[in-house]
Amino acid sequence: MTTGRIYGLGLGPGDPELVTMKAVRLMRSVPVIAYPRTAAGASLVRRIAAPYLPPGLVEVPLDTPMAVDTAPAQAAYDAQADLLAAHLDAGRDVALLCEGDPFLYGSFMYLYDRLADRYEIEVIPGVCSITACAAAAGLPLAGREDVLTVLPATLPEETLMRELSETSAAVIMKIGRHIGKVRRVVEALGCMGGATYVERALTPEQRVLSLAKVPDGEIPYFSTILVFRDRD
Amino acid sequence: MTTGRIYGLGLGPGDPELVTMKAVRLMRSVPVIAYPRTAAGASLVRRIAAPYLPPGLVEVPLDTPMAVDTAPAQAAYDAQADLLAAHLDAGRDVALLCEGDPFLYGSFMYLYDRLADRYEIEVIPGVCSITACAAAAGLPLAGREDVLTVLPATLPEETLMRELSETSAAVIMKIGRHIGKVRRVVEALGCMGGATYVERALTPEQRVLSLAKVPDGEIPYFSTILVFRDRD
Repeated sequence: MTTGRIYGLGLGPGDPELVTMKAVRLMRSVPVIAYPRTAAGASLVRRIAAPYLPPGLVEVPLDTPMAVDTAPAQAAYDAQADLLAAHLDAGRDVALLCEGDPFLYGSFMYLYDRLADRYEIEVIPGVCSITACAAAAGLPLAGREDVLTVLPATLPEETLMRELSETSAAVIMKIGRHIGKVRRVVEALGCMGGATYVERALTPEQRVLSLAKVPDGEIPYFSTILVFRDRD
Repeated sequence: MTTGRIYGLGLGPGDPELVTMKAVRLMRSVPVIAYPRTAAGASLVRRIAAPYLPPGLVEVPLDTPMAVDTAPAQAAYDAQADLLAAHLDAGRDVALLCEGDPFLYGSFMYLYDRLADRYEIEVIPGVCSITACAAAAGLPLAGREDVLTVLPATLPEETLMRELSETSAAVIMKIGRHIGKVRRVVEALGCMGGATYVERALTPEQRVLSLAKVPDGEIPYFSTILVFRDRD
């Protein structure tokens, strides 16, 4: 029997209309879909996919650990890989739904590492949050000879400071509880005027505001800060 | 009379199936589309859009200059803006088709600069070549605390050298006639082993090979090199 194939489907930043035709076709043709789910049982990517999922699809929610580099988290990803392998070994193709793009800061990569040597995997790129946030804010990212730096907000403060001081345009991803640190760095570099905060880009809940105006308090994980040093 | 609205539509890296549902809907609902065209009359983005264009659409090909920062090129973009403005002033919405994403190294930005203060512009992000090339090569771009640097190959050799020496992951865009320069820089930094060349990602003409194996000769503009310094 032929083993199944994995499709890593990038479903974009949140708006179901920003899903590609190819992702829609594949969601309608595979027998099994899998997607990450939080401890509370929520799945953003399942919501993005919802308008396109045909009845009768087998769904495999993957309980995704918050931390990554811990033994329990690694064991959780091993277990997820085993769950998918059972379907693949039975000859069933599996579409693994991913927020944004599968190869850009997604948990897809932990499964890719575990399965790529045993199964055929096709990655279908999606609209990533980098370009979605720029579109939401109406801010061109890079043209001509501009360099663009993409940084996770989880980096240590000194690293963020160094990276930001060396670039003219940056997209800082996964802000969440790191908002205070990012704000300190941007302020220290004197580029608050060129810093824009984007939350849940291109969804009805979108918020776009100058970083200087972001109130203290809880910030969702799916938020991004664009910093343009020459556009203060 | 209400003036028309501009939609900057990102149509992705080349495969018509990597167009988003939203871009398809808009191409089917606007009365006018516009797109860049080379001096030879070719338009890659018009080919991406072809399967979705309804009959009876008014088409405005935009003759796009090769150079950018010259007076004739600036005059050409002024003339393009005037062409679009005539439709907008007559109350017709215009979808401006863009390869990849409108806000990432595209000529869309020259029109955005000229029209954004006079007309309503909505940018619809598309799958960009950054993630398309990673998908084509089967190479995860960035996870955890990785930094990703996006560089145009048009940069001076010293700048490319400095930027590449300071990052662990880079996507170098718009390779074309700059292949020799990029190869020298990658070789000098000793990271040929982690450099992958991707041409026309995710189209039937796709080529993915180690940079070390790219033969001398003509390289298309739509080619990209991924450099991962830690993955030699």
